[in-house]
Amino acid sequence: MRLNIEVDLDYHFPEPADVLLAIEVAQLPDQLLIEDRLTVGASQPLRTVAGEDGIGRRTWMRGEGLSHLSYRALVEVDRPATAIESLPIASPPDLPAAVVPYLWPSRYCESDRFEAFVDKTFGAIAGGAKLVAMAEWVKREMGYAAGSSDSTTTAVDAFVSRLGVCRDFAHLMASFARAAGVPARLVSAYAWGLKPPDFHAIVEVWLDGGWHLVDATCLAPIEGLARIGVGRDATDIAFMTIFGVGEMRSQRVTVTRLDE
Amino acid sequence: MRLNIEVDLDYHFPEPADVLLAIEVAQLPDQLLIEDRLTVGASQPLRTVAGEDGIGRRTWMRGEGLSHLSYRALVEVDRPATAIESLPIASPPDLPAAVVPYLWPSRYCESDRFEAFVDKTFGAIAGGAKLVAMAEWVKREMGYAAGSSDSTTTAVDAFVSRLGVCRDFAHLMASFARAAGVPARLVSAYAWGLKPPDFHAIVEVWLDGGWHLVDATCLAPIEGLARIGVGRDATDIAFMTIFGVGEMRSQRVTVTRLDE
Amino acid sequence: MRLNIEVDLDYHFPEPADVLLAIEVAQLPDQLLIEDRLTVGASQPLRTVAGEDGIGRRTWMRGEGLSHLSYRALVEVDRPATAIESLPIASPPDLPAAVVPYLWPSRYCESDRFEAFVDKTFGAIAGGAKLVAMAEWVKREMGYAAGSSDSTTTAVDAFVSRLGVCRDFAHLMASFARAAGVPARLVSAYAWGLKPPDFHAIVEVWLDGGWHLVDATCLAPIEGLARIGVGRDATDIAFMTIFGVGEMRSQRVTVTRLDE
Amino acid sequence: MRLNIEVDLDYHFPEPADVLLAIEVAQLPDQLLIEDRLTVGASQPLRTVAGEDGIGRRTWMRGEGLSHLSYRALVEVDRPATAIESLPIASPPDLPAAVVPYLWPSRYCESDRFEAFVDKTFGAIAGGAKLVAMAEWVKREMGYAAGSSDSTTTAVDAFVSRLGVCRDFAHLMASFARAAGVPARLVSAYAWGLKPPDFHAIVEVWLDGGWHLVDATCLAPIEGLARIGVGRDATDIAFMTIFGVGEMRSQRVTVTRLDE
Repeated sequence: MRLNIEVDLDYHFPEPADVLLAIEVAQLPDQLLIEDRLTVGASQPLRTVAGEDGIGRRTWMRGEGLSHLSYRALVEVDRPATAIESLPIASPPDLPAAVVPYLWPSRYCESDRFEAFVDKTFGAIAGGAKLVAMAEWVKREMGYAAGSSDSTTTAVDAFVSRLGVCRDFAHLMASFARAAGVPARLVSAYAWGLKPPDFHAIVEVWLDGGWHLVDATCLAPIEGLARIGVGRDATDIAFMTIFGVGEMRSQRVTVTRLDE
Repeated sequence: MRLNIEVDLDYHFPEPADVLLAIEVAQLPDQLLIEDRLTVGASQPLRTVAGEDGIGRRTWMRGEGLSHLSYRALVEVDRPATAIESLPIASPPDLPAAVVPYLWPSRYCESDRFEAFVDKTFGAIAGGAKLVAMAEWVKREMGYAAGSSDSTTTAVDAFVSRLGVCRDFAHLMASFARAAGVPARLVSAYAWGLKPPDFHAIVEVWLDGGWHLVDATCLAPIEGLARIGVGRDATDIAFMTIFGVGEMRSQRVTVTRLDE
Repeated sequence: MRLNIEVDLDYHFPEPADVLLAIEVAQLPDQLLIEDRLTVGASQPLRTVAGEDGIGRRTWMRGEGLSHLSYRALVEVDRPATAIESLPIASPPDLPAAVVPYLWPSRYCESDRFEAFVDKTFGAIAGGAKLVAMAEWVKREMGYAAGSSDSTTTAVDAFVSRLGVCRDFAHLMASFARAAGVPARLVSAYAWGLKPPDFHAIVEVWLDGGWHLVDATCLAPIEGLARIGVGRDATDIAFMTIFGVGEMRSQRVTVTRLDE
Repeated sequence: MRLNIEVDLDYHFPEPADVLLAIEVAQLPDQLLIEDRLTVGASQPLRTVAGEDGIGRRTWMRGEGLSHLSYRALVEVDRPATAIESLPIASPPDLPAAVVPYLWPSRYCESDRFEAFVDKTFGAIAGGAKLVAMAEWVKREMGYAAGSSDSTTTAVDAFVSRLGVCRDFAHLMASFARAAGVPARLVSAYAWGLKPPDFHAIVEVWLDGGWHLVDATCLAPIEGLARIGVGRDATDIAFMTIFGVGEMRSQRVTVTRLDE
């Protein structure tokens, strides 16, 4: 699936501020980044650093006054649908060193607090089917409602309120997985078919020796995701982190399929 | 049911401290307090004040060094079992002024945070059957485990951990009721048949113009409860509140049925 | 000080909902309510009930579609300034029964969590001066910022964020007082001189056998407050509680002094 | 400083459980690990993986019944005292990619919630002196009390309660640093001079292009620390993580100086 991605962001920074952008598509085996270009006002991006786990990249810029950012990317996604139901769950001692930290709780995924619930609700299900059941639970029990959560909402908050957006669905999914001893990380992505178009957050779980995408929102097909970056939770994959004060004036994200 | 209640408490107060006791059986239409006696070491209780909603009484004492407290009561409980399933839920505007505050959230019952969950889970059930379904949910989904919670645990905490003791079961039950617009208050009581014997916490919900007892733990029959006091949550019905530092050395509660 | 109070509220209720209003000025020794009138659209208010502690009143109405509420009151406030610095703090056992619950933590005032801080910061100060020091601390350490908190913000949240509005200042003040063994309740009021004009929240602390007003925001003089109601925290004194869904379209509060 | 480290742990695992140990001294430029040996009952350790940031190592073992673990290490610590007061704070865009995530909040370090407090309290202080002031604040305002916190206590909890142990002091210190835009990570270590001897938790802050140790507890000299591992907070540096149920029966840690 060939995707054309366009992002236009207008921000106002009352005072100069360092800004970390994580909006560039990662070069990965199942998504070939053909070409892309990040433009930051009249100036040049300051510096680019690798993302978490060496996936993707983050770019530092200097926000000052009214700043227009644009990003254009052409990417070929070739991700065969995989059924995770029958994949085995790794024994923790077999995990690669870099995967181990994705067993831990994090700022927005208090997986340590869900252990009894997860054991009671999903404990009897083996293998990848356990993760499928978790995603179905999140989809069934959570209401998707724009504006029902904010940047401080944690998985515990969402579990109680039963309301959230993609970020909260992903936090719950990751928390449940970790509480069951399955490594899980958050993934930011562009999603073909997502309505309304926006940055998307989904989850990857570690099964059978590799990471596998799960989207508990079911709002966009896995086959049309172009990943940006990964991390422990929303804090790691924020598309923009401002070291100071900044205010969004407008935001436009479009993902168009070119090969239909 | 005629009950003989015996309480013996040994506490150590390293420095003199004011202590508020709420361990005396309330005189109420469905429980006739025949006689009782509170003894506080060698000294006299300082002063007795009415409990919340004018139910029962609280006694101030002065804790100093090793203090032995004993309480003996003889009470005739005559509480016919009532089926609450078919009782109507009052419209909020019809509530007596004194009942209105039991609609609000409180320190340990964050009912405001459960509204979507309660609506989704119990919204289709009308009348007292809604409250029965809530009690069944708490009984079914929560694990009863001594030591799994402490005096800071709230209904939200228990909802997430799915573990607790009678206090937590009662907080969840009251929170669900309030979230559905049904007034609910916590009740402390002596409970015949409770194993191991201890102070018990249950809930009263306002249905059909009156308060009705609900015990989501199902650990003791409603017919054998001798109520002590009521309040918004555990903070109001604590059997002992120490204004300073005190340490329990031993605690013994026994409830014996005399008319069998 | 003679005050003319005018309130106009426009709300939209997509579906009929019961609404509890607490916007009427209380008749109290230090504030003589000369006349007032509550108008609720074309319909009549449903029913009036007494407020907490028998202070003031609450009125039930039925919200439906676009509803306009207006309230007009003429009140003579005669409240001599009292210096609370030198007033003695009551020993808990001397408190009236109805005052005791104001020692407890509540939904938005987790006073139990501030004990070590309060002891360390204010423990050496005796009598009413302790409460003055607490109000000064809140005024000095907290930033007043509209929009920095919402209806779910607790005293702990505000203590950490160091930002809030009158509601948060009052929650912190009440929490500190309770943590020091001084009963404290929240008070809603109209405040002459408050800019921008709005409903105001302050605190009453129990000193020397009576309640005394404290405003940690210092945004309006105590002498110009016309109290509406009291309660354990914001949940008890909310000017409007909607049992369903309602949306504010406009709100106007004005307090004019007539005797200048 | 040459240190001899001895650890003996007795645990009981009612059912077989995977256990991740992080108790081995890391090989680092300022601490030369001369020799060490980890013994796990009669069996062999299962597998060793690298720690966070490639520092130190973690060892998987299988807990079953009564398990005795012992660890012996001989380490030469050569860490000149460095005054961090005058070191410059890096501009975020200059941080190495691997250091960036230590700017984020984590499970037990909710640095995002302390921004206003940190700005108000430490905003006027430049460079490393800002971090010194933070450590002094933590030392001055927090009470060190064994048993005052547990494994679920976060920096926000400790900030409110003003009580904690080394773990909580470190969480607060790291949270303050991150809230000021200074990367901070938690460090587990053996500490010569710590009384009573135990595993210790301190902080490293990123200043002037490198990590620098800070111990807000002041309980042991920086020169006598033998680091084990690093991470975002306590969850990453736990000396033992049990995937199942285990109970400590005894724990002994001794750190002896050999070159005096």
